[in-house]
Amino acid sequence: MRVLGVDPGLTRCGLGVVESAPGRRVRLVEVGLARSDVDADPAERLLTIGTEVERWLDRHSPDGVAVERVFAQHNVRTVMGTAQVSGVVMVAAARRGLPVVLHTPSEVKAAVTGNGRAPKAQVQLMVARILGLDALPSPADAADALALGICHLWRPVAAPRPARVPDAVGVPARSTTSATPAQRAWALAEAASRRGR
Amino acid sequence: MRVLGVDPGLTRCGLGVVESAPGRRVRLVEVGLARSDVDADPAERLLTIGTEVERWLDRHSPDGVAVERVFAQHNVRTVMGTAQVSGVVMVAAARRGLPVVLHTPSEVKAAVTGNGRAPKAQVQLMVARILGLDALPSPADAADALALGICHLWRPVAAPRPARVPDAVGVPARSTTSATPAQRAWALAEAASRRGR
Repeated sequence: MRVLGVDPGLTRCGLGVVESAPGRRVRLVEVGLARSDVDADPAERLLTIGTEVERWLDRHSPDGVAVERVFAQHNVRTVMGTAQVSGVVMVAAARRGLPVVLHTPSEVKAAVTGNGRAPKAQVQLMVARILGLDALPSPADAADALALGICHLWRPVAAPRPARVPDAVGVPARSTTSATPAQRAWALAEAASRRGR
Repeated sequence: MRVLGVDPGLTRCGLGVVESAPGRRVRLVEVGLARSDVDADPAERLLTIGTEVERWLDRHSPDGVAVERVFAQHNVRTVMGTAQVSGVVMVAAARRGLPVVLHTPSEVKAAVTGNGRAPKAQVQLMVARILGLDALPSPADAADALALGICHLWRPVAAPRPARVPDAVGVPARSTTSATPAQRAWALAEAASRRGR
């Protein structure tokens, strides 16, 4: 199972490919950024990012795409561009028949640190640890994309393939699945983070 | 000059093609909606809307695309889907080398009614009048897409082709252009609507 994680952004869009390795470990495949020129026409910027995402999809042939869910409440100045990028990424995946799942930032943090409100540095540290990296993932911006991919690989297996992601992901499936310890930890942390929100 | 106007939406996306006719009149070419099933997967819905928009682009070969600018402040529940659709439309146009311009709702209202705060019914009425239709444009939802197209055709000619639309559009170019009466009216109404905002 190989996943492309995407932290959408119009200036810097984090991209991270991870895949499951034997013994429920997770392996880094590639991490990087798609960038666009802030002075370019908005439609050209979206095309630049979208084209780079399509290159990653073609190069790595992931089994699924995990995209950070964008909320209207945050970063009003940039949120429209972020949402536009997420739409472009979702269509690129859907055109290739790949399932797309949206994960909230707190789901991702809970998945890799056990705490849905963990600071950014803790997420980076845990991403490096989980992937067995000697240093923090570089570029730092793309650590979130890797965390998204890890979150996606570790999500509870028995959850139905969701049409509406947050509802489906919110149901820890411990009693109906042969979840691994990591998956159970994920589900517990995720549930805790929901209660704390 | 032929323009595709797009009023982005995930459930109903308004599409209207207009073109300039002799004597600075504007002619209706086609009006309609792209729809997607509210119960479908979000990525599939975006693909459905995007595919339909691409069909319109291929069928009508417009010279440009005018998209309603989405603001984070409005309709928080649906704004993310709306922004994602606008991103998908912008990339579809950019991929075909077509210029994309974003117009705010008040710019559009000012263009067709002379009042940036005109109610929806007045916009529909004026769209019908400008296009010489016997009845209000149908489907009603798509009147906004036609208004966008008209707004785009009537925008001040001497304004530089904008990378950042709202800034460029906000400069009435009366003193440096041989604007037609309709264009002068547009610029005045647009400026008045800016002052009123």
